Amino acid sequence: MKNILLTIAYDGSDYHGWQRQAEARTAQGELERALSFLLKEEVSVAGTSRTDSGVHAYGQRASFMSELKIPIDNLQVAINNLLPDSMRIVDVEEKPLTFHARFNSIGKTYIYKIHNGDYNLQQDLFMRNHFYHVLKKLDISAMQQATAYLVGAHDFASFQAAGGMQRETTVRTVKEIIVEKSDEDGVVEISITGDGFLYNMVRIIVGTLVEVGIGKTGHRDLQKIIEAKDRSAAGHTAPPGGLYLKEIYYE
Amino acid sequence: MKNILLTIAYDGSDYHGWQRQAEARTAQGELERALSFLLKEEVSVAGTSRTDSGVHAYGQRASFMSELKIPIDNLQVAINNLLPDSMRIVDVEEKPLTFHARFNSIGKTYIYKIHNGDYNLQQDLFMRNHFYHVLKKLDISAMQQATAYLVGAHDFASFQAAGGMQRETTVRTVKEIIVEKSDEDGVVEISITGDGFLYNMVRIIVGTLVEVGIGKTGHRDLQKIIEAKDRSAAGHTAPPGGLYLKEIYYE
Repeated sequence: MKNILLTIAYDGSDYHGWQRQAEARTAQGELERALSFLLKEEVSVAGTSRTDSGVHAYGQRASFMSELKIPIDNLQVAINNLLPDSMRIVDVEEKPLTFHARFNSIGKTYIYKIHNGDYNLQQDLFMRNHFYHVLKKLDISAMQQATAYLVGAHDFASFQAAGGMQRETTVRTVKEIIVEKSDEDGVVEISITGDGFLYNMVRIIVGTLVEVGIGKTGHRDLQKIIEAKDRSAAGHTAPPGGLYLKEIYYE
Repeated sequence: MKNILLTIAYDGSDYHGWQRQAEARTAQGELERALSFLLKEEVSVAGTSRTDSGVHAYGQRASFMSELKIPIDNLQVAINNLLPDSMRIVDVEEKPLTFHARFNSIGKTYIYKIHNGDYNLQQDLFMRNHFYHVLKKLDISAMQQATAYLVGAHDFASFQAAGGMQRETTVRTVKEIIVEKSDEDGVVEISITGDGFLYNMVRIIVGTLVEVGIGKTGHRDLQKIIEAKDRSAAGHTAPPGGLYLKEIYYE
């Protein structure tokens, strides 16, 4: 028996999220279908992150156990031949049998992409599933100042979607937030790295940073938003299409 | 009775081409469905260009006759509210009753987008429906030299898909071809303007220019490819996802 860890990229606009569903096309469902066909056994994968409908991945991870009757070196190409072209296996590794893609994860990086500038019907049409269009000019410096309040270990209860899973603790450690703007194409990228994230936490952080960027919220208000421990204190939830699961870390 | 001309943008990856089909989702089909619902009458549109499955448009045109019981100034927003988010009305104009979107067209510009460079699974995943990935480095200068043979009035029989509609003549006038490379992102854009195009003509021109760019064909060979008047003399048909109908011209 082998324990195989896959690194997976997908275009989330083609899936109703990661998690397998009986009636909907999901990334996990398509991956398991391809693996089960290839390996001639029923394969269930354990994914690291349950990305929502419309959220993309450059580096989702999922592990599964298999007798693996084909050489591991052939696995990437063989799976990719069976996957929809909106999903690609980026890497395949063998791990110890005790390894689990989710429980052994020690952190993740997400990227959030904003298209900031005038609205252009044609341009926006082709960006609709992959960027969050923000019309008002964002004050990048104010957004960067706001991130200082978020970095570190905090109770992020204000940044958890109502209706999220009940967790033992809503304390998480955000290691780094980088806000960068490309002057050439008007794209703002926000990179957020942490040890773990509450449900919708990245999208609520981004929504709140956007409200700082357009001047609706002062960057110093982040302090009291965190202290409120109340979802209604934070900003809106940025839409799923701008969010990319970039990387997952293991010890 | 009014004659209305629409300018339409769509992401071709969401449609089985322009032309209405009983069983498939097409751009014309979705547009007519929205118009018929809005105007409470059966609307048939006359489109200028029958773009193939996967081909995009920044500026497709289509005209239709209607009593138009709503003000023309409200039409764009009202139609857009009813269209799938992969299609947008960019402009609405009233035309004389004798005007026809296809028969009155005197020319078109297409853009073809190539992503030229190393293959990156993750990057390519998100570009798959909108660029043609060419791995080998393209010699832009050779491609530009090759365009000189194509510009002007020629019999383009070598650049017509086998199985295309029988036309009275295969002579067309190509007014301009521009080949440009952005060093920053490795994207090569080919802009082709002409008075009209044979079936797959733009994609065959692009495929032939790519073969010049990778050194498989010499740029001077274009002369004899044109003279052959035989599809097998020209290069491959570039894939549909890189092609964008940019603009349609009227007198």
